[in-house]
Amino acid sequence: MKLPAPGKVFLVGAGPGDPELLTLKALRVLREADVVLHDDLVSGEILALLPRTATIMSVGKRCGRARVTQDEINTLLVAYAASGRTVVRLKSGDPMLFGRAGEEIDVLRAAGVEFEVVPGVSAAFAAAATLGTSLTHRRKSSRVVLSAGHQAAGNLKKDATHVVYMPGSDYAPLVSRLLAEGLSLQTPCVVVSGISGERQAVRRTALGSLPDIGPLPAPSLLLAGEVFEDREEFGPKFIDQVLALANRMDA
Amino acid sequence: MKLPAPGKVFLVGAGPGDPELLTLKALRVLREADVVLHDDLVSGEILALLPRTATIMSVGKRCGRARVTQDEINTLLVAYAASGRTVVRLKSGDPMLFGRAGEEIDVLRAAGVEFEVVPGVSAAFAAAATLGTSLTHRRKSSRVVLSAGHQAAGNLKKDATHVVYMPGSDYAPLVSRLLAEGLSLQTPCVVVSGISGERQAVRRTALGSLPDIGPLPAPSLLLAGEVFEDREEFGPKFIDQVLALANRMDA
Repeated sequence: MKLPAPGKVFLVGAGPGDPELLTLKALRVLREADVVLHDDLVSGEILALLPRTATIMSVGKRCGRARVTQDEINTLLVAYAASGRTVVRLKSGDPMLFGRAGEEIDVLRAAGVEFEVVPGVSAAFAAAATLGTSLTHRRKSSRVVLSAGHQAAGNLKKDATHVVYMPGSDYAPLVSRLLAEGLSLQTPCVVVSGISGERQAVRRTALGSLPDIGPLPAPSLLLAGEVFEDREEFGPKFIDQVLALANRMDA
Repeated sequence: MKLPAPGKVFLVGAGPGDPELLTLKALRVLREADVVLHDDLVSGEILALLPRTATIMSVGKRCGRARVTQDEINTLLVAYAASGRTVVRLKSGDPMLFGRAGEEIDVLRAAGVEFEVVPGVSAAFAAAATLGTSLTHRRKSSRVVLSAGHQAAGNLKKDATHVVYMPGSDYAPLVSRLLAEGLSLQTPCVVVSGISGERQAVRRTALGSLPDIGPLPAPSLLLAGEVFEDREEFGPKFIDQVLALANRMDA
């Protein structure tokens, strides 16, 4: 049921627009790309950094333009990787916030395609830098809420992902606070320690069992929310559909 | 009342730890630094990128170590800049989240010291990349809440900074939602359009007057919260204290 997948897909954050706000890793990956599928918001100055030999496709979904559907993007990612290409899915800002990366990753996992995510500077932080205003302040703000404009007011508490910086190792008061914010004892949690370094460690649990996982070396980060539940399994029918589409693209 | 300030302070995000997750701009600024004041969390691999000629000081505040107070850090920033140095205040992740950047900027403004903020990849996004899990998902999560571990449960709504991605230009429903989330009609707001690009534009208003500002070119971002209120003015006494400390450091 798996595609032969010698290629690889990189989901890369292009940052807020200024090419100097690319990470070193994003620049390296872009320069090695065979195929780049980018959103409309990615700036021309950044696209100018791509190798001349790369196949570059805009797959943006802004009004007034011909649409590329999410299914088509998913299929292109799988098909190009299956044909041995190094594929970059280039998104403005950070790729893991307010895009369809979750669905793209679901499909890549289902198809057995290797992938890697390269984080980027999200627009919120670029705006704070420009304004010279910290998003948190000892007296004025201790939390930051990131949301999208099209979201309705109802049911606000239940559908959030919580990220707790500096959670410490005494988790009990933290669990109480997150319960007060609307999470449940069953909400999936992940503690990541030593992020992006050599000693990185990851522990997964439910919110109610968080005090049992024991201390992890600082610095650590706690992430909690339904996005961290066990991955959905894709049925054989779905995978057959993706393979059929990929074969068609390959021809 | 102003210091002569030919030097400049850069508040720079070092990212989550992996030196490849520095931005190109952060690397450029680090390589031009005369003085670097860094937090304990900044990795040794990143400190190894600094010029050999630079003065490097750890000003971290972790337990078990001699403390450098925030007042001392503020004073060092002003004093080194006043003596003509290019000073980097290097913070892990992004500098505008859960650090004391707000206070450092207040002091730099009061002392008339030029400064610039270089955003970085915050740990939340590095963790999402590592886990291969998007922080938002069409069906599971439409918001991300960033908080710090030491925060208590009470009064959660009033002390948040809200960042709305893709706010569109019909602000009325957005105002309703933010009011439902606990903001008031008087909450200061900023709309930033074309972030970090050449056509960047900034409009400031109160939440209740947001529908009056008219459309700004997409992409734009709405930021709302008390951190965006008019800056506090510092009295002459405070500025005298900073100048006195800076002169002492200079001797």
